[in-house]
Amino acid sequence: MNFGDRVVEAVRRAGNPIMVGVDPRPEELPSGFLDRYEGDRAGVASALEAFGRGVVDAVAGLVPIVKFQAAFYEAYGPEGVAALHASTAHARRAGLLVVLDGKRNDIGSTAEAYARAYLGKVAVGTQFLPSWDVDALTINPYLGTDGVAPFVKVAAREGKGVFVLVRTSNPSAVEFQDLVSGGRPLYRHVADKLAGWAAPHVGSSGYGAIGAVAGATYPGQLAELRAALPGVLLLVPGYGAQGGSATDVSPAFEADGLGALINNSRGLAFAYNRPALREAHGDDWQGAIAQAVREMADDLAAHTPSARLRAPGARPA
Amino acid sequence: MNFGDRVVEAVRRAGNPIMVGVDPRPEELPSGFLDRYEGDRAGVASALEAFGRGVVDAVAGLVPIVKFQAAFYEAYGPEGVAALHASTAHARRAGLLVVLDGKRNDIGSTAEAYARAYLGKVAVGTQFLPSWDVDALTINPYLGTDGVAPFVKVAAREGKGVFVLVRTSNPSAVEFQDLVSGGRPLYRHVADKLAGWAAPHVGSSGYGAIGAVAGATYPGQLAELRAALPGVLLLVPGYGAQGGSATDVSPAFEADGLGALINNSRGLAFAYNRPALREAHGDDWQGAIAQAVREMADDLAAHTPSARLRAPGARPA
Repeated sequence: MNFGDRVVEAVRRAGNPIMVGVDPRPEELPSGFLDRYEGDRAGVASALEAFGRGVVDAVAGLVPIVKFQAAFYEAYGPEGVAALHASTAHARRAGLLVVLDGKRNDIGSTAEAYARAYLGKVAVGTQFLPSWDVDALTINPYLGTDGVAPFVKVAAREGKGVFVLVRTSNPSAVEFQDLVSGGRPLYRHVADKLAGWAAPHVGSSGYGAIGAVAGATYPGQLAELRAALPGVLLLVPGYGAQGGSATDVSPAFEADGLGALINNSRGLAFAYNRPALREAHGDDWQGAIAQAVREMADDLAAHTPSARLRAPGARPA
Repeated sequence: MNFGDRVVEAVRRAGNPIMVGVDPRPEELPSGFLDRYEGDRAGVASALEAFGRGVVDAVAGLVPIVKFQAAFYEAYGPEGVAALHASTAHARRAGLLVVLDGKRNDIGSTAEAYARAYLGKVAVGTQFLPSWDVDALTINPYLGTDGVAPFVKVAAREGKGVFVLVRTSNPSAVEFQDLVSGGRPLYRHVADKLAGWAAPHVGSSGYGAIGAVAGATYPGQLAELRAALPGVLLLVPGYGAQGGSATDVSPAFEADGLGALINNSRGLAFAYNRPALREAHGDDWQGAIAQAVREMADDLAAHTPSARLRAPGARPA
């Protein structure tokens, strides 16, 4: 089944477009959490895995999709990567769509190896078997079409997705992404190529295998990209800790409330560190996360077209 | 010790500027190699590790530096990543400098997690310990300075290096990297920023912590980047299988034969698959690799300023 169709189905089922970002910084884990494991690299990796599973269990059924940030797992070497693998598998079993935020990129044949690794199948003896089997991967477009095409090909074939960085949410994004060539900034050149990559792989929902990362810290650009990329799912970072509000992300949606996934990482997965939620939930860190998700869903419903997702028949059973 | 100084010392000791690329595609492994391991993902990972160790043993003492391509290991999941970790450690113990070709990139705090992971130290209990401890990492500059600075900071502090993609060797590199803004192509904007990132971190050799990836498939651009980036080590892919000759890579060197590392991946690590070398070396696949390295060193010495590295006192003992 086409990735875009799977996202639309999951968003309608959850009644919100929230993507929970799991960026497990050890110093932000719930109080006493690390102490339960050995004081070595493998012990920290075990703590990251337990935390990731706990976040998944807290949000399964509440949101359509989670995003794991590879860097914080790779920090703990192969043991950390094993924790990432186990956490993504747990999330898929829990019924969540899973994005791996790895921002991978390389020339053609190497890009194909990454695509097969994360989205497709790899050769094992005489068979082809899935290795990571996540639902979508973030990628970086700097190398151009032949560095992107292998991801698109594998994703389309396997019912998986790719989110291409277009305009990122960090202050220095302006340096290269906003350079103007031929009257258009670089990010628009990327968006225009992306429209071409995406068009052949749109499903019956009107969305497809190829999405775009478009930061919420520049709402004007978000509106511009929404208009330039019909049928392309926008992965919008920047809500919450990075300063973006529901009003800021509103332009990322189509009028029917679809078309955008709003990521929130530390504002949700570390919600138990917010004083008000800590007071309300005490040691129940998963309860604090669930409450933060419900508050974000209400905030988006009040200030964006995503309220339309809550029409009768589209709410969770 | 500054990374640039370490590279210059290693290049002088080896008498050549060859970077052996290890991109272990299972279908290219020596005949019968995979059959020695279990027919599952872990078995393939074990084969990749054994192959990587074998390549290292074949080239240690002959070249200054090796580069491992992360994609081909990540393809086999956590087991593949463990094989990568073991292979990089083996290469460092064998006295080789080790580049991890991961083309990582992200916004500031996540970039810092990648930088600590691969080049620095991570928090483990009350200590900070190295996790991957490779000598250098390739990174992608699309996010701008605040996505690059954490890599620069950690590399400079730890005596490690960063190679920033500037102009890649693939055909589609033209699409974005050659877009002209303000009279200069994007890759020159990247190069000019890179010059600023690199300048504070130059060692006594005249080279420093920050290098650039500049493809050999566009020799005119290589000369341009050599001139624009004094004191910046150029990592030059494209020699050999990608069509670049010694003459093509020659502009990457300074007159003293320094300043460039010439990567060759399948032309060296899979040299035993070339009919002439297979005939000469039979089952001795490591012997075929060593001969291919010597032939490449001779080719570079004959057609580039790297011959200067072979002056008396600079040859291997």
